[in-house]
Amino acid sequence: MATTDDVTKAVRKYLEEVATGTGRSIAALYAADATVEDPVGSEPNRGRAAIEKFYSAIEQTERSTDLLAIRVAGNSAAFHFRVVTKVGGQTMTIEPIDVMTFGDDASITSMRAFWSPDDLVVS
Amino acid sequence: MATTDDVTKAVRKYLEEVATGTGRSIAALYAADATVEDPVGSEPNRGRAAIEKFYSAIEQTERSTDLLAIRVAGNSAAFHFRVVTKVGGQTMTIEPIDVMTFGDDASITSMRAFWSPDDLVVS
Repeated sequence: MATTDDVTKAVRKYLEEVATGTGRSIAALYAADATVEDPVGSEPNRGRAAIEKFYSAIEQTERSTDLLAIRVAGNSAAFHFRVVTKVGGQTMTIEPIDVMTFGDDASITSMRAFWSPDDLVVS
Repeated sequence: MATTDDVTKAVRKYLEEVATGTGRSIAALYAADATVEDPVGSEPNRGRAAIEKFYSAIEQTERSTDLLAIRVAGNSAAFHFRVVTKVGGQTMTIEPIDVMTFGDDASITSMRAFWSPDDLVVS
């Protein structure tokens, strides 16, 4: 079983990759059969190929991420974070709360992102 | 379907009841067949009677709650909050992240609380 420390490190690594990585490098943090439901209520992306495609949409943007709060319970984590994305002269800021589950090797087995369009701030 | 506003109000009402209510009044916010998994990974309390028993443990304490952040996605919410509990001269502070789902009438259909013992601060 992944420890609290393993899970926290895996979340920090994920946010680092979301800020600096590619669709492929972010998807590599996920288990082969993982699911990504973003936002919660949408049809989940299933499997690493679909997950890579999902994240590849952000490759052409300039991004930064900050971890605001994290709570770990067993092999699961809930965390509040900020993503700032610059696209075409506009800055989009959103601070979702994500829930992730992890395998024994600390790979991400599922991600669910809680946010709604009202939470997006464009400046 | 409950609106974002309905869900946010239901979370605020829940935190108000956790601060000032009884096991019965808190359980009344839940659907009859709801589940409470607190912390995530523990055996869930199933049904309103079990939920009432779970919350009645806090009736003899002096408590306050504060909502720190909430994100709503459809009929679900994730929220970060603070609970301060005074028992026998000690003050216990914990700031979990909870995930709730809601019915169309904004009753709580499930609650999962993300925290670990390390997150409890005793002063």
